[in-house]
Amino acid sequence: MQTYRAPVEDFRFILHDVLKVDNYRNLPSFEELAPDLISAIFQEGAKFCEEQLLPLNASADAEGCRYEDGEVKTPSGFKEAYETYIQGGWTGLASDPEYGGQGLPRVIAGCIGEMMMSANLSFSTYPGLSTGAVEAIHNHGSEQQKTTYLPNLISGKWGGTMNLTEPHCGTDLGLMRTKAEPQSDDTYSITGTKIFITSGEHDLTENIVHLVLAKVPGGPPGIRGVSLFIVPKFLVTDGDALGERNGVRCGSIEHKMGINGSATCVMNYEDATGYLLGGEHKGMRAMFTMMNAARLAVGIQGLALSETAYQSAAAYAKERRQGRALSGAKEPDEAADPIIVHPDIRRMLMSMRAFNEGARALAMWVGLHLDFSTVHPDERTRQDSEDLVALLTPVIKAYFTDYGFEAVNMGLQCFGGAGYIQETGMEQLVRDARISQVYEGANGIQALDLVGRKLPAHMGRSLRQFFHPVDQFIQKHAGDEDMRPYVAPLAKSFGRLQQATLWIGEQGLSDPDQAAAAASDYLRLMGLVALGFMWARIVETARQKLDEDVDNREFYEAKLVTGRFFMERMLPDTSSLLSKLTSGAANVMALDAAAF
Amino acid sequence: MQTYRAPVEDFRFILHDVLKVDNYRNLPSFEELAPDLISAIFQEGAKFCEEQLLPLNASADAEGCRYEDGEVKTPSGFKEAYETYIQGGWTGLASDPEYGGQGLPRVIAGCIGEMMMSANLSFSTYPGLSTGAVEAIHNHGSEQQKTTYLPNLISGKWGGTMNLTEPHCGTDLGLMRTKAEPQSDDTYSITGTKIFITSGEHDLTENIVHLVLAKVPGGPPGIRGVSLFIVPKFLVTDGDALGERNGVRCGSIEHKMGINGSATCVMNYEDATGYLLGGEHKGMRAMFTMMNAARLAVGIQGLALSETAYQSAAAYAKERRQGRALSGAKEPDEAADPIIVHPDIRRMLMSMRAFNEGARALAMWVGLHLDFSTVHPDERTRQDSEDLVALLTPVIKAYFTDYGFEAVNMGLQCFGGAGYIQETGMEQLVRDARISQVYEGANGIQALDLVGRKLPAHMGRSLRQFFHPVDQFIQKHAGDEDMRPYVAPLAKSFGRLQQATLWIGEQGLSDPDQAAAAASDYLRLMGLVALGFMWARIVETARQKLDEDVDNREFYEAKLVTGRFFMERMLPDTSSLLSKLTSGAANVMALDAAAF
Repeated sequence: MQTYRAPVEDFRFILHDVLKVDNYRNLPSFEELAPDLISAIFQEGAKFCEEQLLPLNASADAEGCRYEDGEVKTPSGFKEAYETYIQGGWTGLASDPEYGGQGLPRVIAGCIGEMMMSANLSFSTYPGLSTGAVEAIHNHGSEQQKTTYLPNLISGKWGGTMNLTEPHCGTDLGLMRTKAEPQSDDTYSITGTKIFITSGEHDLTENIVHLVLAKVPGGPPGIRGVSLFIVPKFLVTDGDALGERNGVRCGSIEHKMGINGSATCVMNYEDATGYLLGGEHKGMRAMFTMMNAARLAVGIQGLALSETAYQSAAAYAKERRQGRALSGAKEPDEAADPIIVHPDIRRMLMSMRAFNEGARALAMWVGLHLDFSTVHPDERTRQDSEDLVALLTPVIKAYFTDYGFEAVNMGLQCFGGAGYIQETGMEQLVRDARISQVYEGANGIQALDLVGRKLPAHMGRSLRQFFHPVDQFIQKHAGDEDMRPYVAPLAKSFGRLQQATLWIGEQGLSDPDQAAAAASDYLRLMGLVALGFMWARIVETARQKLDEDVDNREFYEAKLVTGRFFMERMLPDTSSLLSKLTSGAANVMALDAAAF
Repeated sequence: MQTYRAPVEDFRFILHDVLKVDNYRNLPSFEELAPDLISAIFQEGAKFCEEQLLPLNASADAEGCRYEDGEVKTPSGFKEAYETYIQGGWTGLASDPEYGGQGLPRVIAGCIGEMMMSANLSFSTYPGLSTGAVEAIHNHGSEQQKTTYLPNLISGKWGGTMNLTEPHCGTDLGLMRTKAEPQSDDTYSITGTKIFITSGEHDLTENIVHLVLAKVPGGPPGIRGVSLFIVPKFLVTDGDALGERNGVRCGSIEHKMGINGSATCVMNYEDATGYLLGGEHKGMRAMFTMMNAARLAVGIQGLALSETAYQSAAAYAKERRQGRALSGAKEPDEAADPIIVHPDIRRMLMSMRAFNEGARALAMWVGLHLDFSTVHPDERTRQDSEDLVALLTPVIKAYFTDYGFEAVNMGLQCFGGAGYIQETGMEQLVRDARISQVYEGANGIQALDLVGRKLPAHMGRSLRQFFHPVDQFIQKHAGDEDMRPYVAPLAKSFGRLQQATLWIGEQGLSDPDQAAAAASDYLRLMGLVALGFMWARIVETARQKLDEDVDNREFYEAKLVTGRFFMERMLPDTSSLLSKLTSGAANVMALDAAAF
């Protein structure tokens, strides 16, 4: 059985105590955010996820989506849950109040997003894709486009999608063939086939607003000739009334390893009417707005499923009895001890837990800076925050989903043979989690983005936004004996990250293959240091709270133990990563392609 | 599409050149083993696996097994393939000629086993379980039991199973409830429920011989009171004629994550007639014969699926075009380069390849010693070989399946989003591979077996059988400059393994939790050193062959490159593993169970 209770106490601890969000009440969108209001939002969100979404998770997996003659039926219960969801106003949590959104900080919406993904990843993909469409139209649309599409997307009455991939072109979007012919009425006629379109067709909303990348004939070759178009399933006439069916049809849905409740569609565009979003040939810029948000969200999927796997495995480990504690029977009156007494089960549970809590803190720290990057009044602060977010977005996407996948597998492993049986729900978590490593840019692409784009950008400006606070933290605690078990390993690993950065900078200049061969290990090294930094901050905070908030001592003491586990049993990977990535590209590239 | 061609050239290289099996032609079962005969066996086996089994792999996954009223139908094509299989005499390849087997060395049967698992893991589980039953009856049965059951099991006319697990007892077999009441005619009446019984019921053979663990009332408590029984589905009357249906029925089959073509059965025993195998209360000893062979076989499953994943991913990477090589377009006339030009794709392919070839050599080295342990005329050599096999069995089971799972996931990753779609077959490999980490003793149990049983046994005698040849190899090549890039990393990692061994020996004495908390990391450390050792031997051999066998230079040169990759990009993990495992049990055990 999948077990999930939203970790509300942890969200609140990170938000108020670690990130001290209450210090920012003077910022737009943070003003009304009293701790009580935040608690109420979290509790309502938790209730919805635990009571409405979680019970549909296994059944939706078994049932899947059904395709018939261009229409897609979502699994039983999704329609009702979606109704409740939009009535609760959850779709527009962080959207612009001008168009009906609630204008809350994104860091809050991110927490609710994590809960939803934990409870039912497939369901979360429907509103999740709409959020991206809202951002793209909000940032790049004309006033008319905004008033036409945003209110219904934000209310959840309509859904949104992103259409990038074609059969022969995934990562390499320059190969795109979908065409957009300009028409006399300023619209474009879109023709082509898109694949892997999440929520491309479904029965949850009355209209679906597709954002489609296509090439206007005669434009520049490759990626520079790509433009972005709004292509609604039903054309919108007067106000928001629905008119004619547009020339876009779902041709089929994919049979996948997991997220069976999420419709992954082949979309056929045939003379569909499209409206240019942003300028001609400026499609990639607009698309990046959506992609960056989507990449952060996908990273959180890794964490979210790891949380459910952790909770499920912990519940099972406290209940299932096999063998005896090596240090002597813990419950001698029973036939056997619960398996949580065994160190190897503990090692897996602690690994998952240390990852989850550290990753959550990192995601929320970056989420806060995502808010700063748009709402902070100081331009320099906005830029600094944007740099930090840009740097850590690929790290969160790839490290969270790679380790998240390892973690859900540890969850399954705690169940032994029973984990392999569909009934326990653990294998579903593994199948569902696996997609997060391949979509929104496979993780190898994230690593290239980090090493090839984010590191060198603006002479390393982004990197400084991360290195500087880590460095400051280490210096601040240099003489603190109590913090030494945390700060010393962090400092050591940070040193390795600096060394790796230098190596890549030097070697990559003369031979880009050197940087590319190092990229994935480098990304993971940075992910580990980032979690190490968050754990050190968590521990610093927990040590203060131990005295201030004596009623919750156990919560803070657990943080000290878990932080220690992270430093001693997870962070050491930085040593082998440094060694591997500085071994050079020759061992990777020396074989002739024909020898494979 | 799954791509698989049996790596016959690699099998032959390891067998003849690395392990120098032709030096042992004086040993029983090796006598007739001319290189030509071995080649012919490999080629015939390869043909069967590639042409008969591989084409059924995806269809069997989609179709699964069907349960109806106590009967199980295997997927379409399995019956015909099984007919061909037994007609080819493959079931009895390494079995005793006295009972119709072919008496070939097990190391040869192991290679054929790897091929079968690569091509169709589900299919391989049917004859695979019979092999275990043959060994148990051969080693522990009475003369009458042997003549009654062995010929038909060895010919494949009948199948065999292992029945250990019950709903409340998996790892902890002492909790077993299945009862065996002695009857007046020297038989026993068996009653109880067994779960997770691979091949417990199916339509491939006319009879199924179940080996069932049960407790004779009044025996010692716990595991010491367990006995093993032969319980045939149909009682055997005159000679091998089938008589009455026995009181054993399949109650249902499990719905699993993968290996859908393999029937995983709930078996209900109700007053079934059983025949004691070995002595009363000596069931575990007899069962261990089967379990050790099964654990080695399961380890090879990890390698086998990794091989298929590697070949499939390599084929895709040479075909799929996205982007350009960073060092400049490799095929400028095409719209894009094949993705094998990208270092991160190479890194994954090389990781899989380096694991596969190293693991294959290790499995075959241990397989050879498994032969020595039974057929060698020198008692001391038999004992030494048995010790080596005992030590490395849990390492092969756990490390091969853990890394094998990582490797099939790299295979999927090379396909990007397409890997998540059922059509490409990559996600099936991931689902199929996942079971190998949980069955035949979950991998955490293997680690405990290594650290708690194998290390201390006979004052470390087993360990010496592994440490001694590694040490000798390192010393032999101490001054060899050409071998330094291989021997230096091996020596460093071997030093770490020795350090870890000492630490566990010292700490484990005073606190068994220390050893148990270190066990999984220690096992992996030993697995890496063992592969490092095999790679150093492979390279040593390949360097000699480069001059002797100039027509195949490319094969040997690829070994030098791949060996280097292993040393520089995989073996460094030994450094972080040592650091983690010596961090002590406190970080794992400190939290109260209620805090999880």
